[in-house]
Amino acid sequence: MIVGILGAGQLARMIALAGYPLGLDFIFLDPSADACANTLGEHLLGDYNDPGLLAELAERADVVTYEFENVPAAVAEFLSAHTQVYPWPNALAVAQDRLIEKTFFHELGIPTPAYAAVDSFESLKQAMASIGWPAILKSRKLGYDGKGQSVLKSADDLKSAWALLEDAPAIVEAFVPFDREVSIIAARNVSGASVFYPLSENLHRGGILRISESREGDVMQAQAETYVSRLMETLNYVGVLALELFERDGQLIANEFAPRVHNSGHWTIEGAETSQFENHLRAILDLPLGATAAVEQSAMVNFIGNLPSTEDVLGIPQAHLHLYKKTPRKGRKVAHATVRADNPEKLSKLIKALTTLADQVDDS
Amino acid sequence: MIVGILGAGQLARMIALAGYPLGLDFIFLDPSADACANTLGEHLLGDYNDPGLLAELAERADVVTYEFENVPAAVAEFLSAHTQVYPWPNALAVAQDRLIEKTFFHELGIPTPAYAAVDSFESLKQAMASIGWPAILKSRKLGYDGKGQSVLKSADDLKSAWALLEDAPAIVEAFVPFDREVSIIAARNVSGASVFYPLSENLHRGGILRISESREGDVMQAQAETYVSRLMETLNYVGVLALELFERDGQLIANEFAPRVHNSGHWTIEGAETSQFENHLRAILDLPLGATAAVEQSAMVNFIGNLPSTEDVLGIPQAHLHLYKKTPRKGRKVAHATVRADNPEKLSKLIKALTTLADQVDDS
Repeated sequence: MIVGILGAGQLARMIALAGYPLGLDFIFLDPSADACANTLGEHLLGDYNDPGLLAELAERADVVTYEFENVPAAVAEFLSAHTQVYPWPNALAVAQDRLIEKTFFHELGIPTPAYAAVDSFESLKQAMASIGWPAILKSRKLGYDGKGQSVLKSADDLKSAWALLEDAPAIVEAFVPFDREVSIIAARNVSGASVFYPLSENLHRGGILRISESREGDVMQAQAETYVSRLMETLNYVGVLALELFERDGQLIANEFAPRVHNSGHWTIEGAETSQFENHLRAILDLPLGATAAVEQSAMVNFIGNLPSTEDVLGIPQAHLHLYKKTPRKGRKVAHATVRADNPEKLSKLIKALTTLADQVDDS
Repeated sequence: MIVGILGAGQLARMIALAGYPLGLDFIFLDPSADACANTLGEHLLGDYNDPGLLAELAERADVVTYEFENVPAAVAEFLSAHTQVYPWPNALAVAQDRLIEKTFFHELGIPTPAYAAVDSFESLKQAMASIGWPAILKSRKLGYDGKGQSVLKSADDLKSAWALLEDAPAIVEAFVPFDREVSIIAARNVSGASVFYPLSENLHRGGILRISESREGDVMQAQAETYVSRLMETLNYVGVLALELFERDGQLIANEFAPRVHNSGHWTIEGAETSQFENHLRAILDLPLGATAAVEQSAMVNFIGNLPSTEDVLGIPQAHLHLYKKTPRKGRKVAHATVRADNPEKLSKLIKALTTLADQVDDS
């Protein structure tokens, strides 16, 4: 069985590593010659919209999936006409456009921050009359790690923020003074069976995820499962999906979802009975989904920009290091490590040991 | 960093899968075109003693290791003259010859079954006068999964057993009416630091390992660690080593050791903080060794001969399937699965579910 993946970055790499024990082989399409999954399967080197390579991928892979949600619509359509693609392209269409996404949440009764469409400076000013300060102006498309976003603290910020968008269709959202950020990773297979991971509690800095902790038995688990179920059932979703949420005053407010395996679920490799990567593969191959129970308590720390020394990380005997083999670059996720413990005090100490190493190399 | 491995079977495959997260690349030398690790690194296709391929392996790999102990002495010598090979070839010399191995145990004060060298039919008859019945006659070299062994129940068996050996140098060992079989997996790195896994309790049938269970806190742990330490320190051993033992009347008796990762340690992938495969790599790269504590209780079941359906195995939500991508063949280990539980009753049920599947396909 050959699984095709659009993209051969660290997510594809971890999907492939999870797939080998299931006897799977992989073929990747990625424009970068040194894409970091490229030694774990065959690498079709070229643009995502190269018709010849897409045809080859469709021809040779039994099923195609992707590691990023900004797959061009034409590519998704071509592939789904020629082979089986999961998640279905409808999930891409929603996830690629923040306005459609927020509207979709709204229609499903999933709370969101107050938001409004912005397509001119005039409409931005009008929207701010009702949204209130502070707010965040975002382009509707191609958002990633906080790029293309401006915080609006007062009317003084409007002009520069609008100019930054260069007339791209946008959305303005009320800033949520959240108590914490969480996400829920869920998987649904072709037959419609679903599993839900324990909540991840996430810490972002500079728009980039820094730490995720597993939260088995969290008081917000049931609410998060209800919301993500609604998303998955409505989309007839197949694969792993991550829903990012704010918690405020005991309520969950949806921020965004990703129709793919997600950085806030990397702890599941060591910290859950079955990893998100393996369950993504089981889902798209319509295999029974694996148990998602947490194994002890665990946490993941991202390494951004530069790598700590392997010796330093492994000097923490409980640390599990995941190097992505990506060239260090400012603000780039180049590795992560997880730790696991049977009590919160031990876990805190281990997280502290990892974040100390992460902060030393962080250049973002 | 490139790790070279002699052999590209399932052990090499699992070593490579453990090495990718550490940022390692792999190059394998294996005579089989469809060797099952061959998509996880570069595959040098040819005989183990092919001088050109060995030179290429030595040239390109930063360190070389092996997945089987029957590496020809000349190959080990050539490689160690041209690159770094771990474990040191001295461990191979001992492990390849049952007589040298038993003598080595004896010299280190590690109990063994009564044994005697056999190099003629006459010496076999003489030996049996002191060893007693039943006993096992084994060729000194190339033992694997019970091949080349004969059980001697009475003097009637001597002639046929001796004939089977075809004059190969042999050893006769007293049969140990053991209470149980255990093994200890240990790792020692280049700097001399060691770690020990919780004992594995093993069940063999027809000379082939069927089930291994993790035994954290076993009453024989300390004794086993003492013996395996003695082995490793004396050999200045580097890498993972497995020592197989019989337990009888509260005493451990050494059966044999393997200078490599071992089937009875496969449960460590999910059932220990760090797997034997990762610790083998850490050891030979002189990295800090990872924690070996058990994660809950776990067990591994081998699939011999044929494969169960993936759906059936994954229908057990806690099951972790490891397919080796080997062509099914009578008596061949083609896959294993592990299960993990937080209490013995739950674990027993899970093991039963796996062995039911294993027995359905077992042709050995």
